[in-house]
Amino acid sequence: MNNRADWFIEPFLHTRKLKPENQETPISFVGGDKTPAHLFYLRNHFDYPHLTVSAYFLPVNGLVKTPRIFSIQEIMSLPAKRLKMTLECSGDKRSLFKPKVFGEQWEKGAISQGYWKGVSLKTVLQYTGLSDQAVEVVVEGYDFGERKDLIQVVPYKRSLPLRKALHGDTLIAYEYNDQPIPFKHGFPFRLIVPGWYGMASVKWIKQITVVGKPFQGPFQTIDYVYFPNPKSDVGKFPVTTMNVNSTIQQPLNMDILQTGTHFIYGIAWTGEGKIKRVEVSFDNGLTWEGANIEQKPKHPYSWVWWTYEWNVYEKGEYTILSRAADSAGRTQPLQAVWNRKGYGYNAADKICVKVE
Amino acid sequence: MNNRADWFIEPFLHTRKLKPENQETPISFVGGDKTPAHLFYLRNHFDYPHLTVSAYFLPVNGLVKTPRIFSIQEIMSLPAKRLKMTLECSGDKRSLFKPKVFGEQWEKGAISQGYWKGVSLKTVLQYTGLSDQAVEVVVEGYDFGERKDLIQVVPYKRSLPLRKALHGDTLIAYEYNDQPIPFKHGFPFRLIVPGWYGMASVKWIKQITVVGKPFQGPFQTIDYVYFPNPKSDVGKFPVTTMNVNSTIQQPLNMDILQTGTHFIYGIAWTGEGKIKRVEVSFDNGLTWEGANIEQKPKHPYSWVWWTYEWNVYEKGEYTILSRAADSAGRTQPLQAVWNRKGYGYNAADKICVKVE
Repeated sequence: MNNRADWFIEPFLHTRKLKPENQETPISFVGGDKTPAHLFYLRNHFDYPHLTVSAYFLPVNGLVKTPRIFSIQEIMSLPAKRLKMTLECSGDKRSLFKPKVFGEQWEKGAISQGYWKGVSLKTVLQYTGLSDQAVEVVVEGYDFGERKDLIQVVPYKRSLPLRKALHGDTLIAYEYNDQPIPFKHGFPFRLIVPGWYGMASVKWIKQITVVGKPFQGPFQTIDYVYFPNPKSDVGKFPVTTMNVNSTIQQPLNMDILQTGTHFIYGIAWTGEGKIKRVEVSFDNGLTWEGANIEQKPKHPYSWVWWTYEWNVYEKGEYTILSRAADSAGRTQPLQAVWNRKGYGYNAADKICVKVE
Repeated sequence: MNNRADWFIEPFLHTRKLKPENQETPISFVGGDKTPAHLFYLRNHFDYPHLTVSAYFLPVNGLVKTPRIFSIQEIMSLPAKRLKMTLECSGDKRSLFKPKVFGEQWEKGAISQGYWKGVSLKTVLQYTGLSDQAVEVVVEGYDFGERKDLIQVVPYKRSLPLRKALHGDTLIAYEYNDQPIPFKHGFPFRLIVPGWYGMASVKWIKQITVVGKPFQGPFQTIDYVYFPNPKSDVGKFPVTTMNVNSTIQQPLNMDILQTGTHFIYGIAWTGEGKIKRVEVSFDNGLTWEGANIEQKPKHPYSWVWWTYEWNVYEKGEYTILSRAADSAGRTQPLQAVWNRKGYGYNAADKICVKVE
C-alpha cells in the first residue's frame, strides 16, 4: 500500500534557483566521503546545453604543434587517473558575509566530493604538442547564454596558466564515482582542476584552445574576481585556489541538546597542501582544542572528516567554532575577507546550541 | 544515455532534520495552488509509527453516549467534504526572529496547501453522541517517543475545544489532492483543523477521546505555547489560529535584477476570515501600494496568490516588503511578536534586491 518513496527518509538538494539550476548539497546530512551524484551541488550559469553525443568530438587547437580532434573513444583509451577530489563553488557560504552580498545565497553546501576518473589534460596535450608562444589553455564548455552585462551571447569559457594545465592531476574526466559523469555535471567530459574553486572545472567540454596571452573572458575578468572594495575595482585579483576551510556538519546551528556527550563533527579542506589541524573553540576563539582527523588525508585533494567529543554538563547557550589549518601555513581567520561579489568565504565556522 | 532524472529540473524539499524527519517546502519554487504531495512540508515529532492497515480501526470513546469503533470502510462511507486548505507549521519563519530562537530553523517553507477530503469530525461524533460533561475532544496519533523534558514515552496527542471539534470543516481526512494521504502525511486518517496551525492536524489518528476538562498534554502545555517572556512563563497562551501572513516567492532575497519590469509575487493567508488586501512597500513600510490578488479567495482556508508589477528604472539596492490584511481586521505588523519558542512569526515579509 505504501511504496518505498513513502517510507524512505532522505535528504535532498537544497534549491537556490531553477533557471539556471543552482542547488546545494545538504551538507549536514551527507555522510561518508563520496557525495552521491544526485546530491552533488549544481551550479550553472546558463541553461543546460544541447549535446549530440553521437556527433561529439573534442578539438584541441590554437598554439599547438599539431591540432587534433579526439573522439570519445580515443580520450577514454588514454591512461587514466582516478582521484578523490573536493569541488567547492567559490560562492560557497556567501550568505554568511557581513555586510551581505547580492547573488546566490549559498549556505554551507556548495561543496561536494567524490572520485573523478579521466585522462590528464597534460597527456592529451602531449599528442598535439605546444608551440613556444603557449601561455594559457582555454577550455570552453557547451553551455552558453546571455549575461546581463554584455550584449553578445557568451559561452562558458575559462583559462588555466600552463603550470596548472600541465599539472598531471588536472583531468579531462569522464567518470564520477565509477559511473559516467551525469549529464548535469558535464557529460561526456568535464575538466577537473584540483585545488581550485569549482568555476575552473568546466563542464561539457566543447574545445580546448592553447593561447599566447592571458585570456580575458567575462568568467575570469568580471565574475570570479575578488573585488575587495565596495565601490571601486582597486585591488582586484582572480579567484583560483580554494581557501583553507571547515564546516561543522552536526550539531546544527540553533539545535537544542541535552547535557551529556555529543559528537561535534564536520569536514575540513584546502586548495593548497593538506589539512594539518582542525580545532574547535567554545569561547569565541580565545582558546582552541584539537579535533580528531578521522582519516589521514591520503588523497590531498579531498576533505577530511573530523570529530570532537564534547562533554557538556552545564545547561546554557554555547557558541562553537571550528577552524582548520593546512600544510601551506594557512589557518582560517575569525572573520572572512569581505569582497564585493562574495567569493572565498572561509571564516572559522560557527554554530550556536542550547543545552537543556 | 541520459534518463529523465538526468535532465529534469525540479525543486526539492529543503532538509532541516532527518531524525525525526523535518523538511520544508521550497516555497519560492512551488507554483499553483496545490502543493504536490512530494513537496508538502514534513514536520514530525517522533519516528514514523508502525501501522498495520489491515488491523486498523478507529475507536471513539470517553464522554460519549455510545463508544464506537469505526472501520476504515465505515469512515469512508460517511458523507465527505473536500476543502482546499493551507497547513502551516507554527514554527514557520522561526529563523527570522530577532533575537534568534533555538529549535528547527524553518525559513519560509513550513507551509503547503492542497485539497483534503474526509468526513467531518462532527459527523462521526453524531454516531457516538456526546455526554453532557463533554468539554474537549482529544485526538491521539500513532506516533510516540521520548521527549527530552519528560521521563515517560509520550504519544503525539492534542485536544480541540468542542466549538472547534464540532465545526463542520474540521475533518477526519483520508485523501490529499485526490489520492490517499501519503503515509508520511498521516495515512490512513489525519485530522485537519482549518485555520489552526499545523500542530492541531494530528496524523495517523489512533483514537478519539471526548474529555470533561481541558487536556494538559505536553504538546499543548509545554510546546505550542506562546511564551512572551525570555525567562519566565508569565503571559503564556496557547498557539491556535494562524496569524495573517504573506510571503514573497519571487524575486528571491539578495537577487540581482536588471532595470525594467519585474513581477513580484507571493502568497498570503490567514486563520481567521479571508485575505482582504495585500500591499507592498519600497520604503520600509512608510507607504504601501496595493498588490493584485489573483484569485478571489473562494476557499476561505487557502492562501491567495498575489502579484505586483514593478517598473524599476533606477539602479540601486531596494528593500521590498509585503503585508496582508484579513477580514477579521488583522494586518501583518512590521515586527513579529517575539516569543521564547518562536511560534507564529508574521512580520511583513522582506527581501532585498539589487538592480543593475
